[in-house]
Formats: sequence, structure tokens, C-alpha cells
Amino acid sequence: MRYPERLLKLIRALSGLPGVGPKSAQKLGLHLVQQQEVAKELLQALEAAQGLHTCPICGNLAEEELCPICADPERQRHIICVVEGINDLMALERSGEYSGLYHVLGGALNPLEGIGPEQLNLASFFKRLNPQNREALGAEIQEVILATSMTVEGEATAGYLAEQLAQRGIAATRLAYGLPVGGSLEYADEVTLARALENRRKLAE
Amino acid sequence: MRYPERLLKLIRALSGLPGVGPKSAQKLGLHLVQQQEVAKELLQALEAAQGLHTCPICGNLAEEELCPICADPERQRHIICVVEGINDLMALERSGEYSGLYHVLGGALNPLEGIGPEQLNLASFFKRLNPQNREALGAEIQEVILATSMTVEGEATAGYLAEQLAQRGIAATRLAYGLPVGGSLEYADEVTLARALENRRKLAE
Repeated sequence: MRYPERLLKLIRALSGLPGVGPKSAQKLGLHLVQQQEVAKELLQALEAAQGLHTCPICGNLAEEELCPICADPERQRHIICVVEGINDLMALERSGEYSGLYHVLGGALNPLEGIGPEQLNLASFFKRLNPQNREALGAEIQEVILATSMTVEGEATAGYLAEQLAQRGIAATRLAYGLPVGGSLEYADEVTLARALENRRKLAE
Repeated sequence: MRYPERLLKLIRALSGLPGVGPKSAQKLGLHLVQQQEVAKELLQALEAAQGLHTCPICGNLAEEELCPICADPERQRHIICVVEGINDLMALERSGEYSGLYHVLGGALNPLEGIGPEQLNLASFFKRLNPQNREALGAEIQEVILATSMTVEGEATAGYLAEQLAQRGIAATRLAYGLPVGGSLEYADEVTLARALENRRKLAE
């Protein structure tokens, strides 16, 4: 069948999105051409989103000059949590447990794919750690939480950054490994179980 | 966390799409604000798709005055296949087995949800069946295939249309029920199995 060319173009654009296969792209495309209101809302939202940029300090998404977190006077300014992506930042924010600042790397070290320190958002990170800039940033950095993924690449990135932080005399911490809350032992993989044992804590007596 | 307002708006627009839950809406939204090229392509495709309209003859999507099928001189014009939605039309076209015309109802009869014959794209269907219009449409309608879904609503719609066609002396056929090709007996539901038995065919001797 010769689909209308514009529908084909829309389906092609949709199938380039993460998690959208050819079948759902077709379903979404048809929905969008049949529901003009829905398409209009998405169109306007996409247009507005084009105005978003990267926060020059931390790499988070920003509407104003700085991102909402860097601009928030209520956030603790002496602690930075380093994450690979904005989705990780959002996951941590949803936990509601963290009130410091962030730094978004935009990936993890991966020599096989040619991602070295230069490919990550590190220049502005080291600038933040520089004592000369401390006044401009509002506080002295006392701790950096390395919240990169628990993968080979994430671990390598955390290792590299821990070294850099040690050279600068700044405390580095890593998120705790262990069993997911609500998870049963039966379904945990062996590596997670081994780490959970290794990092076991004394219960208060 | 206070996400940038424009990102929130985009995530909200995405989560209104079929099969997109809150988590995938967030993933898609983040992808679209971080991959400007992808967002631009989708934006342009959406804009172009706004120009699509409904074919005045059959209810399919059309870019020109008529849809590509109604405008195609190669299609058989004496047979019409009635489907509920454009996705059904596309599924039949993918099979490559049908070379007649279509009629898209835009749904199925559903009295409980207030969908009667007036809510479906039927006025133009009856116009197509009218002998006075046969010349304009290029051929006399000899057969109407009722390819509505194998659901209660689809069956009711087919029943209603079969009656209307009988009154006009036009042959109505229904798609065959049976086992899906490649499907094993073991996994077929009982109703399908019963229908497959009922509609069994003699093998050529």
C-alpha cells in the first residue's frame, strides 16, 4: 500500500525514539494524525522544549540561565552528586532524600567506544572544584557523591573521579550497593548478593 | 524536584499517547530535549501531518483530494472492504492480498457507549452503494467484505451492515474465522477452535 507520504514520515520519526518499535510507531503515528488535538499539544510542547538548554554549571536541563537546582537558594551548596545522565538526577530527586547540588556527566568512561574524560562534561566539574571559583559558587565543596551506574563503565568513571578528588583533597563517597528495598533474596543476582554481604552493617543494639 | 516547566509539558503531552506510560513518557521527553535533531525531525513530521485529512469517499487518510487507494486506477472498483479503523486497513494492505477499495467506519456499533449508526462514517458508505452514484464512482459495487473485528461490537456492526446490503441486493461477505496461520491448536482459545471446526473446508481430492 502507498501510505500517505506525510504519515510515513511521521512514523519514521517516531520509530527513532527509544523503546518505540515499528508497530508502536505506526500506532502512535495513526493516533497523532487522527487526533488533531493531541498532535497539536505535542507539537506545541516540542516547540517550547526546543528552548531548553544545558545548565552551564551542572549540565542539567535549564529554562532560565541556570537549572532549577543550581538556581535554588535552599539547596546545600557544599555537596555535589555526580551522575551519568539527567534521568539519574531525576531518579535521585524523586527519592526526595538529597538536597545538595548535582553534576551531570553526560555518559560514562568507555574506552572501547572512544569515550574518554574529554568526551564527558568534566571541564566545568573541575572548575567547580577549583578553590579559586569557590566564592562564585557560593560554598566550598566538602563532599562529592559518585552516583554513576553500578556497571563496568560507571565503576571506571567513579574510580577515575575518586582519584581526581583525592588529588584535590575532597572527600568522595559512592552510593551503597545492596539489595533493592522490597526485593527478595531469591531473585537477587549473585553479584548484588555478594556486595550486600560485603557491605553488611551492624544493627543498633 | 522542580523540573523545567517546558520539559513537564512535553512529558505530559507524551503520556497522553496510546501505550506510553508515565515512565516511558519521561524517557521519551528527556530523549527529545537532549537530542535536538530527533526533536526537530519529529516536529517537522508532526507539522506536515497536520495537513492530512480524511478521504471524502472512504474515510482513509488523504494527502491529495482523495486517498491513495481511491485515487489508484489499478484498484478494483466493484468491491469494497469495510473496516473499523485505518489501522485495520493498513493490516489488510500489508497482507498484499486485496486489490479492491475500502470503507473506514471510524469505530463499531456500541449502544452502551452511545455509538449508533449515525456516529459511524456511514452516510458516505450508503452514498457509494446508491445506484445513482455508480457512474461517478467508476463501477457497480458487486461485493462488500465486512472486515470488522471479531468482537461483539464488530459482529453487531457486520450484522447491521449485512441487513442494509441485503435490502440493496448487494452481496456481503465476512472474513473467515479460524486458527491463525502458524498457530498451534494448543494455544488457540475455545471459541476460535469451535469456529475453525465449524468453518472447516474439504481438501481437494
